Amino acid sequence: MKVSEVLHMNGGIGDSSYASNSLIQREVIFMTKAIAEEAVSDVYCSMFPKTLCIADLGCSSGPNTLLVVTQTVKTVDKIRKKLCRQSSPEFQIYLNDLPGNDFNSIFRSLPRVQEELKEEIGSEFGPCFFNGVPGSFYSRLCPTSTLHFVHSSYSLMWLSQVPKGVEMNKENIYLASTSPPSVINAYYEQFQKDFSMFLKCRSEELVSGGRMVLTILGRKSEDPTSKECCYIWDLLAMALKQMVSEGLIEEEKLNSFGIPQYTPSPLELKAEVEKERSFSINRLEASEINWAACGNKLYSSDDSFKDDGYNVAKCMRSVAEPLLVRHFGESIMDKLFHKYGEILSDCMSKEETKFVNVTISMTKRE
Amino acid sequence: MKVSEVLHMNGGIGDSSYASNSLIQREVIFMTKAIAEEAVSDVYCSMFPKTLCIADLGCSSGPNTLLVVTQTVKTVDKIRKKLCRQSSPEFQIYLNDLPGNDFNSIFRSLPRVQEELKEEIGSEFGPCFFNGVPGSFYSRLCPTSTLHFVHSSYSLMWLSQVPKGVEMNKENIYLASTSPPSVINAYYEQFQKDFSMFLKCRSEELVSGGRMVLTILGRKSEDPTSKECCYIWDLLAMALKQMVSEGLIEEEKLNSFGIPQYTPSPLELKAEVEKERSFSINRLEASEINWAACGNKLYSSDDSFKDDGYNVAKCMRSVAEPLLVRHFGESIMDKLFHKYGEILSDCMSKEETKFVNVTISMTKRE
Repeated sequence: MKVSEVLHMNGGIGDSSYASNSLIQREVIFMTKAIAEEAVSDVYCSMFPKTLCIADLGCSSGPNTLLVVTQTVKTVDKIRKKLCRQSSPEFQIYLNDLPGNDFNSIFRSLPRVQEELKEEIGSEFGPCFFNGVPGSFYSRLCPTSTLHFVHSSYSLMWLSQVPKGVEMNKENIYLASTSPPSVINAYYEQFQKDFSMFLKCRSEELVSGGRMVLTILGRKSEDPTSKECCYIWDLLAMALKQMVSEGLIEEEKLNSFGIPQYTPSPLELKAEVEKERSFSINRLEASEINWAACGNKLYSSDDSFKDDGYNVAKCMRSVAEPLLVRHFGESIMDKLFHKYGEILSDCMSKEETKFVNVTISMTKRE
Repeated sequence: MKVSEVLHMNGGIGDSSYASNSLIQREVIFMTKAIAEEAVSDVYCSMFPKTLCIADLGCSSGPNTLLVVTQTVKTVDKIRKKLCRQSSPEFQIYLNDLPGNDFNSIFRSLPRVQEELKEEIGSEFGPCFFNGVPGSFYSRLCPTSTLHFVHSSYSLMWLSQVPKGVEMNKENIYLASTSPPSVINAYYEQFQKDFSMFLKCRSEELVSGGRMVLTILGRKSEDPTSKECCYIWDLLAMALKQMVSEGLIEEEKLNSFGIPQYTPSPLELKAEVEKERSFSINRLEASEINWAACGNKLYSSDDSFKDDGYNVAKCMRSVAEPLLVRHFGESIMDKLFHKYGEILSDCMSKEETKFVNVTISMTKRE
């Protein structure tokens, strides 16, 4: 989950100190590595392009930012060696995020990363050119028919804006079992609008036969208010409601707040892809990851119970705080996330709690 | 002059607060506008590419950063309209500087710039994609045969490193009439090595018939120690020597300092281009600009005399301070540039002082 993507909604500038890539993202990248490898292998072996153009959309800035693209480069080089092809393709790598993302810190880490790549792969690979591409992935980012492989992980559940009519959702901050149908519809329609725009833009940018692998925070159930995707926000709403009852937040303020996210099911993704018609689906999979994977081992202690909840709170804070600060102000954040940690700990001690990831691998049609 | 380029020498990270694009740079961009326009017009009209790829090398970050590329886009659109061509090319724009450059501030200004472009040109142009490309222009930056137009202004006089044997240059910090031949040779050889590497890299990146326009701080004379290019540094050396005599700087410290710059003559540029053989020269011109053009009108007063010197000192400070701080430490900077301002004022009141710019326009051979 990327704070910079959260900030889509207001076209705002993120506070880069919050742009921390979480452990959970790293975990997800490794879980979906085989799918990404398969896709990039296919596109490389079917075209052997002189320059292989790769885009990572919603790259954020942190320890995971360059993970996928370096994995991709290594995969291609391994295949090249296996096939005894002498000359390596050149790699043109586009790292995309919103203009408020901290590209400076990515760029400053590049010389080291390029050095490591050379050491690991050998000097005969590449060259490998890195580009920063600032902009929303709900608009065009690259020239027509130039990309071979597009990747995005944990970004596309963020909508371009909060759906309209969110005040009808009362004390809920996301979809919940008590959300009225009009709100559920508004969220779904915003997702459809955004995701179809995303597909349209990418279909223009990818070459025929180009591949795209997306991992999105989602759900297995067809019910958009099901617990698997809503519970994490429900518990945050609970903490906010406690603060309303303590007089720390006005009720109206809470009622007008909404998280600009939609966690689609595999079937919903499939429906949009089929409607847009530019892509054929190669794989569509749901996987699960424990909330506890948020846990940073550096902070672990014997009281691991409690830690888990607080670690998840910390992880969610890095995602949601800029949105919350904008709406509720800075001052209540420590208290809010302390409460949220307590609630999470309590709930995680009683039940098994998981995020669902949906991964879709597609080919751009001729 | 770009502080970030100065930092080539140590592969270091620039302090972005000093990365101020000076008025003089703006002036130079306008002076050479016609040459850049001619080049980009030629390349557009000879190819009508679907995507026009433009690179600005050493783009820095400041008010002038996007000036050249937006001018270029406007020029192409004007020609397109004149020729009644319905469809606009897409523009792929590469903004290059060292990884330490403040790309964040460029990227954050892009939405506004894109909006302005659309308003001025109309919505039927483009789209226009902006990319940040971190890296040294003395290495490859873009894939083979992809660029149509390369531009660089006030960057290529910066060498990739301080030439060897600079201690032989004693109290001089740049070439001077008292520089021994070995030092003059070392500077010239470093320039030849760097500039020929630059040409080689760009010749690989440009398409056949692609164009390149470079403006470099240079000289008219064939003497690399002539006053027109050395005086400005000579006066800074004078200020440093005063501080040595006051015991504020150790003599050895001064003797081991050198400015990694070389200001070539038109003939020296021509010789390198002809030796490298990938480019034919369309234009090669020298022009002059008064030191006083550094002056920021916001700071002007009746005592314009004194101001001129201090404005030039301020301008040179933005260029040279990071290099000086690295070598001499932070603490003496205010004093040094105050002295330098005094010396500059005095000299500018007595004689006419000018920078020489050399502009070269080239075509990549078939």
